[in-house]
Amino acid sequence: MIILGIDPGYATVGFGVIENSGGRNKALEYGVIQTPKDESLPKRLAKISSGFEILIDRYKPDAIAIEELFFTNNQKTAILVAEARGAILLTVYARCKNLFEYTPLQIKQAMTGYGRADKKQIQQMVKTFLNLKDVPKPDDAADALAVALTHAQTNRLAGLFGI
Amino acid sequence: MIILGIDPGYATVGFGVIENSGGRNKALEYGVIQTPKDESLPKRLAKISSGFEILIDRYKPDAIAIEELFFTNNQKTAILVAEARGAILLTVYARCKNLFEYTPLQIKQAMTGYGRADKKQIQQMVKTFLNLKDVPKPDDAADALAVALTHAQTNRLAGLFGI
Repeated sequence: MIILGIDPGYATVGFGVIENSGGRNKALEYGVIQTPKDESLPKRLAKISSGFEILIDRYKPDAIAIEELFFTNNQKTAILVAEARGAILLTVYARCKNLFEYTPLQIKQAMTGYGRADKKQIQQMVKTFLNLKDVPKPDDAADALAVALTHAQTNRLAGLFGI
Repeated sequence: MIILGIDPGYATVGFGVIENSGGRNKALEYGVIQTPKDESLPKRLAKISSGFEILIDRYKPDAIAIEELFFTNNQKTAILVAEARGAILLTVYARCKNLFEYTPLQIKQAMTGYGRADKKQIQQMVKTFLNLKDVPKPDDAADALAVALTHAQTNRLAGLFGI
């Protein structure tokens, strides 16, 4: 199955497309959608949205996995990221109903087996799981691949335990 | 000109369509889009989005005015409202580029002339400006009409002062 992972943001949105088959995972494409600071929020949301339309048309994912927002002290940033996340949810759900949300804790646990892993440990596991030479860059792309891998992992376990 | 005003939310979204001509304002339609609690966020966003698509197709507004989010202590609610607001911005901007954002303070000032007006005073002014018999119900619809009227008012002043 093909899984699109998304690390939501408004200035930089990470995406990662993987193919999961027989317990193996392969990266098909990963990167970021960036939006210019000097543009209005609606324009930036439109750019993010059309980026995901193109990706979904290209890969026709069987499932989409997106990170849930964690609470932060910077409420202005949190609100902007949430606005972008709402626009992303609307866009991708219109094209793929198999949409899953994972918390940062779920991603840490799926990737490393414990909930206190730091960003670098997760990125190392992304590299290992996808059999890549280096840790994927930029960080937002690696994070998006981690979300996609979390779905692959969760799905596999659900299959094993017959959930 | 026809103005669509929006009071963003995820459970209840207020809308108000007014016609402004020669300094007079008339309510064309107002109400709320409601989404069921037991549905997933992507489904709720899709419902809100299609509601605005229908409204914009019906009235072909010359301008759309939406309230900016104010910061709140309830971060969970703020994030959900922001996600809905992002989905709304994406939807309406695709259909009308004349999109304006107003802060709660700007709305208070435009509607009552001072920034400390309470909700009831604003709703009374909505009734007066639109020459209605009663205050529009529910509150979210009245709030949305206030946003539309704020745009009409701001636009008129901008015209007067040649801004």
